Amino acid sequence: MDMELWYTEKQTPNFGITAKIGKTLHHEQTEFQTLDVIETKQFGNMLVLDGMVMTTDKDEFVYHEMLTHVGMFTHPEPKRVLVIGGGDGGAIREVLKHPSVETATLCEIDRRVIEVSQKYFPEIAGKLTDLRVEIKVEDGIKHIEANPGKYDVILVDSTEPVGPAVGLFQKPFYQGIYEALRPGGVMVAQTESPWFNRELISQVYRDISGIFPITRLYTASIPTYPSGLWSFTLGSKEMDPLQVEESRFTPLETKYYHPGMHHALFQLPRFVSELLEQEG
Amino acid sequence: MDMELWYTEKQTPNFGITAKIGKTLHHEQTEFQTLDVIETKQFGNMLVLDGMVMTTDKDEFVYHEMLTHVGMFTHPEPKRVLVIGGGDGGAIREVLKHPSVETATLCEIDRRVIEVSQKYFPEIAGKLTDLRVEIKVEDGIKHIEANPGKYDVILVDSTEPVGPAVGLFQKPFYQGIYEALRPGGVMVAQTESPWFNRELISQVYRDISGIFPITRLYTASIPTYPSGLWSFTLGSKEMDPLQVEESRFTPLETKYYHPGMHHALFQLPRFVSELLEQEG
Repeated sequence: MDMELWYTEKQTPNFGITAKIGKTLHHEQTEFQTLDVIETKQFGNMLVLDGMVMTTDKDEFVYHEMLTHVGMFTHPEPKRVLVIGGGDGGAIREVLKHPSVETATLCEIDRRVIEVSQKYFPEIAGKLTDLRVEIKVEDGIKHIEANPGKYDVILVDSTEPVGPAVGLFQKPFYQGIYEALRPGGVMVAQTESPWFNRELISQVYRDISGIFPITRLYTASIPTYPSGLWSFTLGSKEMDPLQVEESRFTPLETKYYHPGMHHALFQLPRFVSELLEQEG
Repeated sequence: MDMELWYTEKQTPNFGITAKIGKTLHHEQTEFQTLDVIETKQFGNMLVLDGMVMTTDKDEFVYHEMLTHVGMFTHPEPKRVLVIGGGDGGAIREVLKHPSVETATLCEIDRRVIEVSQKYFPEIAGKLTDLRVEIKVEDGIKHIEANPGKYDVILVDSTEPVGPAVGLFQKPFYQGIYEALRPGGVMVAQTESPWFNRELISQVYRDISGIFPITRLYTASIPTYPSGLWSFTLGSKEMDPLQVEESRFTPLETKYYHPGMHHALFQLPRFVSELLEQEG
């Protein structure tokens, strides 16, 4: 009988997921983090950074579509789009589905995430060679400081708030994003689990509300992420995503997002909306 | 250093959750299934039947509210309500929040689930002693056959489609429910995960659509259930849940459901709505 190998991720000190695996396809310590690619039987290839699942073949579409399209459709005509983090290329792939896009800039601090994703996740990273894509291997915080007033939409596709991503959950970073956006600009950041990261969500929502005139949170269901429920926080200079008109939506090929849910998304479970009402 | 104990549930042959535990509070083999109660560090007490998580202190509110309130508010004035399964009492607790309810009948096949829940889950089972509650320890299939035209709302709060619950996912059972409902009646059944039970969801939706003039599916995020995303299928004799007017909603104390999401719930992720379009 074959040996059974299982990968277990402790998503909190007291809870986790476990996945039956085949081969470990890749393991390295990069300049910034440990980087693993493993074959799972349930979700296909899985990218793991510092022991945390970043994406899998089978459920990546939820995260990448939901990080991208809500903000992209909130902006009236996004031409220049920046993705901070997101070296796997999934958010860039979704950004490029919008015909108004002229340049999609990927700012990823770790070159190895890009290279390994291109090798093992061709369905996710395949659009990084598109002529509209510009790849910057540099610190996202420095990149936004160096590019004031440049972008229409900025998507923050970070790892968890440990290691290289700590600064991407702090108020000075969101202030920098505000300044890197053109008038009418929109940002969306992944902001963790409403079950396991309650204080972080409250804090980030307060911070973004202190900078952007319009702030909205929405969620999506991602099986391989902690608790299976994930949050995204949107900051907008002018347009409220709740006011976007139906005529704005161009047809997209997607598997999770569709325009019919654009307004419905903001009808949050009560325990989630209560996180946004707490005093600072 | 203390020994660490972890409970691992294989939700599929290739994927599962794992939870750090304290004491095992209860273990028995009942007439119908194995029944365990364990203390988890993340989700509080956890009820496990035949090795599958049924409910936990911390996330039970999602399942019980979402099984109950969508159907209850779809009916104009639910007076007689039946819960099939649901021996933990959580669905009954939610049913009783609706002031029109005169009798709430629990039909649970396994008396021990009720008794053990009353001991270890007082927050969930505490309303089973309400004067409006009638408890029947019997087979749900036989109960509906014996009670034609009796109920306004029937909720199917079953275990997974193995063991004692197999018949609760089959077309003759839904036909029996139709006949046990009064004119204007509404049913809601828990129908498993859109990630891991795709064929089951398609089949149940087709079966219920073949019996009820109105069939709708919606989802909710439940961290301890397989994939974290759960589906519910509603069948209605007259009222479409999408047509319920705002004035129908009476205020309820809830932590997940609120009337603002009543219509939004039906804006399903595209990969879920595609399950409902397949040919039989």
